[in-house]
Amino acid sequence: MENNRIFNFNAGPAALPLPVLKEIQSCFLNFNNTGMSIIETSHRSKSFDIVINSAKKSLEKLLKINSFQKNKTKSKFHILFIQGGASFQFPMIPMNFLSKDNKADYINTGVWSSKAIAQVNIQGKKCNIPASSENKKFSYIPENIKFSDDPAYIHLTSNNTIYGTQFKSFPDTKGIPLIADMSSDILSRPLDMEKFDLIYAGAQKNLGLAGVCLVIIKDTMLQKCNDKLPTMLKYSTYAEKNSMFNTPPCFGIYTISLVLKWIEKEMGTLEKMEQYNIKKAELLYDFIDSTNFYKGTAEKQSRSLMNITFNLPSTELEKKFLAKALKNGLGGLKGHRDAGGLRVSTYNASTIKGIKALIKFMDRFQKDNNQ
Amino acid sequence: MENNRIFNFNAGPAALPLPVLKEIQSCFLNFNNTGMSIIETSHRSKSFDIVINSAKKSLEKLLKINSFQKNKTKSKFHILFIQGGASFQFPMIPMNFLSKDNKADYINTGVWSSKAIAQVNIQGKKCNIPASSENKKFSYIPENIKFSDDPAYIHLTSNNTIYGTQFKSFPDTKGIPLIADMSSDILSRPLDMEKFDLIYAGAQKNLGLAGVCLVIIKDTMLQKCNDKLPTMLKYSTYAEKNSMFNTPPCFGIYTISLVLKWIEKEMGTLEKMEQYNIKKAELLYDFIDSTNFYKGTAEKQSRSLMNITFNLPSTELEKKFLAKALKNGLGGLKGHRDAGGLRVSTYNASTIKGIKALIKFMDRFQKDNNQ
Repeated sequence: MENNRIFNFNAGPAALPLPVLKEIQSCFLNFNNTGMSIIETSHRSKSFDIVINSAKKSLEKLLKINSFQKNKTKSKFHILFIQGGASFQFPMIPMNFLSKDNKADYINTGVWSSKAIAQVNIQGKKCNIPASSENKKFSYIPENIKFSDDPAYIHLTSNNTIYGTQFKSFPDTKGIPLIADMSSDILSRPLDMEKFDLIYAGAQKNLGLAGVCLVIIKDTMLQKCNDKLPTMLKYSTYAEKNSMFNTPPCFGIYTISLVLKWIEKEMGTLEKMEQYNIKKAELLYDFIDSTNFYKGTAEKQSRSLMNITFNLPSTELEKKFLAKALKNGLGGLKGHRDAGGLRVSTYNASTIKGIKALIKFMDRFQKDNNQ
Repeated sequence: MENNRIFNFNAGPAALPLPVLKEIQSCFLNFNNTGMSIIETSHRSKSFDIVINSAKKSLEKLLKINSFQKNKTKSKFHILFIQGGASFQFPMIPMNFLSKDNKADYINTGVWSSKAIAQVNIQGKKCNIPASSENKKFSYIPENIKFSDDPAYIHLTSNNTIYGTQFKSFPDTKGIPLIADMSSDILSRPLDMEKFDLIYAGAQKNLGLAGVCLVIIKDTMLQKCNDKLPTMLKYSTYAEKNSMFNTPPCFGIYTISLVLKWIEKEMGTLEKMEQYNIKKAELLYDFIDSTNFYKGTAEKQSRSLMNITFNLPSTELEKKFLAKALKNGLGGLKGHRDAGGLRVSTYNASTIKGIKALIKFMDRFQKDNNQ
């Protein structure tokens, strides 16, 4: 492959678009004729203002929010860049929106949902689980969920990297604020943002590199923040200061701005991005289903477009598969330690070319090892 | 200058060593023959383990701690990489070490100390100010400080980027834990780590890029952490998981590892690094003192080796100076908005060549504008 690069199916940090990497590389010593690297540039400079505002503008355009809303009566959203990853959002959300007097509903669809729930409990706050797929090893997305009476918010994980499941549509919360961890499928498909009061996504899968978490929060939700928290723990701090109360993760935001421009240029819209992702996933799922050798782990109606999980007939064969795949330039295929098996992460930046190379390898491996 | 780069005197994010930038650039598409970029590499991979462990080993060597201690009875330190910058340490420290029943002493030497103090107050915890230099616009470092009885810890800011002052030696705390914000002078000089129970430093001045904060904590201090905090707010989480409870800011840690290797290769020891920094600062302070045109703002005995602050005869001349300097390839010289004037940041990566070019320009500017 070009530049001796492999096809990288890592679950995160994950593959990024090659044109983005090349652009970062080409101007790394002299960013935008400033005579300095982007990583040496002051966050208080005009050149960085352009970067962060470009990232926000692209997000608004792709998600059709704020000035890109057709209907001007729709909600206003704040776009924030916060450090600490999604794992830092787990405690920050209940800190901001729960008190001792209310509770939240958390749908439990896997390890990441469970971690979010744990950070509510650790604060001694109340958390109700209206639905869980733990009974079948998180292999499906629960449907027809009955929420509790008047929770402060409902929380869900839109895509589950570990078990390879994904919400195809989102529950009707009947006006109760909906919060979603979208770390592993943000911008992989169109999103009706009106349904959500807060979404968040660690950047290192579909958006950029580790060290920055995108948070998009509805203005009405922002008003509900706990104002007595330490400054760095309040969403309002980030909203009021354009995410620059203190020095932000500038390089991370810069990389996001380039990835977003790449989506706009290569795909144009999230509808097109979704079509491309469906095509990749279908190629691989269809191949898996055509064999008795490879077995998908998620229930078909809940299958993720981003993380495709499957098993081989034995763990021995899985080990052999991983080693041989890497030798063939196919990396990052090992399943999460909690789930085992194999996992192919097919985020936005992964390519049909890569999927086809993988299927070709899988086909050959099957023929060589099917007794 | 090489690659059309300017001499960058930014206060942070700040100039980084050119060899480090070139190394990042050269292997940006294929890190260590993994076939992927460092920003696409899993934090659970062997190749990233090498990176984070290399950074820790270099820090231990340069600071003579842990396995590099001559005296094996000395303290054990934990080296942590945490997101959120020094501004996130401001609340995290009192969260971990203060309760309603104890208090801390905070020496107030400027804006950053004041911000740290504010994050104690916001939690409703007690904070005593045993010394402050606010009476003279923070232009000096207080001496002969009398601490309160038995505080949980004493906090200071070792170098003040805004007012250009720096602790030359550290107070004897008589066994009371000492915590220092060293964001702007970490690794610029040798440090007797035995004196400190916790030091922290946002990376974007002397260590690397924005988005990672180095924390070094004595094992005895770690034992005192509040264990009931949310997971991401406890120091113990980072110590137990080698800073990888969740995805760390991998690229930031990688850059730190390269900057540390550069110090080891170019300087060898922090004693040598300090000599180089003294030489740069002396050149500039001596020139300033030789004129009546430029006036240093910090008291001489408290002058910083890292941030050299001065005024011109008028704010008009200062504006003219800044514009003309930039045209001459000398950037980042504007003083902080709270202090005004000019500021030359002379962190480790700044060069004698740069300082000499600046002095030459200052000399010419003075002759052209001295009426």
